[in-house]
Amino acid sequence: MLARLPGMGRRSARRAALKLLQDPGGLMLPLAQSLKDTAEAIRPCSICADIDTQDPCRICTDPSREQDVVCVVEGVSDLWALERAHVHRGLYHVLGGVLSALAGVAPEDLRIRELTERIGAGEIREVILALPATVDGATTAHYLTDRLHVLAPSVTVTRLAQGVPMGGALDVMDDGTLAAALKARRPV
Amino acid sequence: MLARLPGMGRRSARRAALKLLQDPGGLMLPLAQSLKDTAEAIRPCSICADIDTQDPCRICTDPSREQDVVCVVEGVSDLWALERAHVHRGLYHVLGGVLSALAGVAPEDLRIRELTERIGAGEIREVILALPATVDGATTAHYLTDRLHVLAPSVTVTRLAQGVPMGGALDVMDDGTLAAALKARRPV
Repeated sequence: MLARLPGMGRRSARRAALKLLQDPGGLMLPLAQSLKDTAEAIRPCSICADIDTQDPCRICTDPSREQDVVCVVEGVSDLWALERAHVHRGLYHVLGGVLSALAGVAPEDLRIRELTERIGAGEIREVILALPATVDGATTAHYLTDRLHVLAPSVTVTRLAQGVPMGGALDVMDDGTLAAALKARRPV
Repeated sequence: MLARLPGMGRRSARRAALKLLQDPGGLMLPLAQSLKDTAEAIRPCSICADIDTQDPCRICTDPSREQDVVCVVEGVSDLWALERAHVHRGLYHVLGGVLSALAGVAPEDLRIRELTERIGAGEIREVILALPATVDGATTAHYLTDRLHVLAPSVTVTRLAQGVPMGGALDVMDDGTLAAALKARRPV
């Protein structure tokens, strides 16, 4: 079971298991209890699908956040990354994946209907597509842009800038990034 | 001597040395000759400082390239990276480094005078600052922008876009990149 955790191979799982077995009272039972409590306490937010102990989640119910800007992300890990960076002061919408012909992910497999319903409610001014800079991410962004332009032409749809990452040396960048960075160059 | 090459440790240098010693006629002498010939043939371009066997270099003398757009890079490896990506159709200017208070690199240590002379000649319309996305790179870009605005206000100074690189998953990006990508988001 432990070996099914990400970052745990069979070898490290064995080490972790031995550590637990050597201290059942001090580590194993508290961990079991803590996992059980957390599993029972968490639920996905019915609005944005973030994982929290309350529904709607802390972000959706925070009155200090901009209520009219929604950042669309692929998964909860992306939402957490943006929150860690303290860069987005609006709300989120977790899609639960990106469209993929290869993996057989269709629009109805993602939380796209929920997104269109949120936008149909009419309080959203801007939708930021913070999807991964991959082919599937770009496909999903295209699809969403088309849907949103038809559904709510007044809503601004933006996407994250592509270019050279912070600290990036040019000579280790891939061609696509260099091309995007040069194409989207800006006056200083 | 071999161990002073980048990517060569003492161990791999010993392996390379043994390989050379075991085949003096087939490998060692041809390599020596080839290194000697190349060392004698190459020279830095007196205009852009690219390394070539002719001066001015093949890029500076290519009439099919845009003569009025100059891309400023830190080093020759950056120039080669941009050429590999086939993304820039203008000319280049190699600075030979970036300003650095820590490493004691001052403006006069870089090829900045040569750049201002090129721009003073009056045929340049745009200067693209393709400097690394580091603190020193940004400092150098600021310095050059100020100098160029005073010297030639009609020349457009641009810099590469910063943001998420191609194929980039959001949850592994650093905070600075996420902030830059979100700030520079663009309508789709």
